[in-house]
Amino acid sequence: MSKIITLTTDFGLTDEFVGVMKGVILTRAPAVRIVDLSHDLEHHNIRQAALLIKSAYRFFPAGTIHMVVVDPGVGSSRKLILLQAENHFFLAPDNGVLSLFFDSENFQAAYEIKCEQYYLSPVSATFHGRDILAPVAAELAAGVDPEVVGPLINSHTLKRLEISRLQIDRELGTITGEIFRIDHFGNLLTNITESSLDDLYKEQKFTVKIKVQNTIINGIETAYKHKNPGEVLAIVNSQGYLEIAVNQGNAAKILNTDPGEMVTVTE
Amino acid sequence: MSKIITLTTDFGLTDEFVGVMKGVILTRAPAVRIVDLSHDLEHHNIRQAALLIKSAYRFFPAGTIHMVVVDPGVGSSRKLILLQAENHFFLAPDNGVLSLFFDSENFQAAYEIKCEQYYLSPVSATFHGRDILAPVAAELAAGVDPEVVGPLINSHTLKRLEISRLQIDRELGTITGEIFRIDHFGNLLTNITESSLDDLYKEQKFTVKIKVQNTIINGIETAYKHKNPGEVLAIVNSQGYLEIAVNQGNAAKILNTDPGEMVTVTE
Amino acid sequence: MSKIITLTTDFGLTDEFVGVMKGVILTRAPAVRIVDLSHDLEHHNIRQAALLIKSAYRFFPAGTIHMVVVDPGVGSSRKLILLQAENHFFLAPDNGVLSLFFDSENFQAAYEIKCEQYYLSPVSATFHGRDILAPVAAELAAGVDPEVVGPLINSHTLKRLEISRLQIDRELGTITGEIFRIDHFGNLLTNITESSLDDLYKEQKFTVKIKVQNTIINGIETAYKHKNPGEVLAIVNSQGYLEIAVNQGNAAKILNTDPGEMVTVTE
Repeated sequence: MSKIITLTTDFGLTDEFVGVMKGVILTRAPAVRIVDLSHDLEHHNIRQAALLIKSAYRFFPAGTIHMVVVDPGVGSSRKLILLQAENHFFLAPDNGVLSLFFDSENFQAAYEIKCEQYYLSPVSATFHGRDILAPVAAELAAGVDPEVVGPLINSHTLKRLEISRLQIDRELGTITGEIFRIDHFGNLLTNITESSLDDLYKEQKFTVKIKVQNTIINGIETAYKHKNPGEVLAIVNSQGYLEIAVNQGNAAKILNTDPGEMVTVTE
Repeated sequence: MSKIITLTTDFGLTDEFVGVMKGVILTRAPAVRIVDLSHDLEHHNIRQAALLIKSAYRFFPAGTIHMVVVDPGVGSSRKLILLQAENHFFLAPDNGVLSLFFDSENFQAAYEIKCEQYYLSPVSATFHGRDILAPVAAELAAGVDPEVVGPLINSHTLKRLEISRLQIDRELGTITGEIFRIDHFGNLLTNITESSLDDLYKEQKFTVKIKVQNTIINGIETAYKHKNPGEVLAIVNSQGYLEIAVNQGNAAKILNTDPGEMVTVTE
Repeated sequence: MSKIITLTTDFGLTDEFVGVMKGVILTRAPAVRIVDLSHDLEHHNIRQAALLIKSAYRFFPAGTIHMVVVDPGVGSSRKLILLQAENHFFLAPDNGVLSLFFDSENFQAAYEIKCEQYYLSPVSATFHGRDILAPVAAELAAGVDPEVVGPLINSHTLKRLEISRLQIDRELGTITGEIFRIDHFGNLLTNITESSLDDLYKEQKFTVKIKVQNTIINGIETAYKHKNPGEVLAIVNSQGYLEIAVNQGNAAKILNTDPGEMVTVTE
């Protein structure tokens, strides 16, 4: 059975950058299947990439290899790393983009990538996704052991991303989180998890109030259609997060809201 | 020989939505080939999706499975359906997006998708493309019989799209249609078929007049190059429809025209 | 081992054009691997396509088949050609888009595509990428000999692109080139090669001055990070060309520069 390599970058699709990474991969591992997750991340937005890969990896089979190439430090002394977690492999610069896996229950190991024998030659100063990560991912897919990629490295020495955590106040019965992404439909994705709602509000979950800026939303819906077209609503989305949306409309435009905006849930 | 699954959505490529659908498919049917038709359909534009899949499916081999996920009603009680027509399979919400196949000569069967044993668990309220259609498409590709997907359903009970039909006036010698799409080059795609032109004008086809707004185009060209750069022309395009174009220019901008605009052909 | 076909077009991804070419290919050569290089080239920008394929092909294995469909002359009498060079295959219109390979050391042969037995039927007036190039590429991938595609043709009879060459003045110690592309990050790609820098300046290479408009850049860096965020710098990029960039910024916007702008290097 062929291995899968997924690609997540901020390269865009206008240039040939993504295509040539695929060429490098298929040259070394001709049977591998390559899946694009996104190439339209905001330039150098490590946080956005970190959240995307954390939410997406679990829809792929165990053993999948995920390359995350958002790399503002390319050519500097930042390390490149291989992570084994949740029975998947992740390759990326050591800039925090994989740090949401560091505390995961099934964190297995981290390696510093040092297997120069696999790199393209010469290695350019500006495109390590093509010259280092792509060939190493291909060799992993072709069966090379992670130990061959480089020495084990303690994850505590790796760069960690500051992601705001949920504030849960059990006395007041509030959860405070934030909008971390706006999707293609203009839906506002918050970092408030379904499990935090279940935990705090139990069967009262569907009758909470959600506040973002000056808008108060009453209750959590189970389908967009339960509100009229154009109305603002809250829903638990397909990734398991509280989402603020507008039935058949664009919530980000209607509420004029940006990522980072605070969201508060109360009983 | 591997099966092919095509994907047509309004999801865009910035989010991971398309990528995770591919992950779900490849988890269940590792050998399947996946082809993107478009992910940049206008949001919730069922008509645009219906016309695209009707024009595109025939370039794929018999047995190809086409997923069309333009689904403003996700989470409501709208059905999900599997259609067999023209020896292809089509999976989509029952919102009219497949209705251009209902009257096709080789319409074979329609099924309501009800095979919960194949769905992802839990099924989210907002992403049935990933949670229901992708796994069912993968199971079909892996060899499951359509009968296993759900009960047969009479296509007369399914939602039908209102697509304006051509008005052909044999006495006046006119065909009236409309612009239904503007392509990437700014070409205006009309719903006037080559066969209607052949039928009404026969060998005089190339000398008809085409009127759109206040512009009158004399004759149908057989190549863009037969007009000078910047000149408006009519041509039968590669999908077999009358198209209004500008040699090396953007007809939509030059004529300032939108989809829905009436187009009239006269002798 | 499966053959690879790469696709480079100006079709965009909103319409189904790219997807149906893949359908045609997979119908004839089900095992072929298809890689997108770019579909967002500027409309009819043959020069941009020529430079992209010249820079990208070498990251694919020998025997790869590259389709380059930037074809403002579709439907006119322009030829379609198959080139063998550098042990790769290239299919394109005879409009100069492949002419950067004509003088290559490993130029092998050029053929005029004339194998009508392989074309889709009927051939449309507007989409030879789908109706001719895709099926011919698929037949090549499936093992058909290039001689079957059509007669040998002398490359001197083929259309050649005027690409400005570097002006190297050994007495003055200057190299004059130009910006030929702006990438997704706003980096300015020049046609000044690393080998011309090595040849003229030898070990002084890193201390040259680079002038573009009124901006003078001192020295060539080996990493973006060697300048502060927001500062303009010069670097040899991953394709082996001199590039003008801004660390974590957009050089094209900051310098307000377009392709075609002159770039001069002095000691």
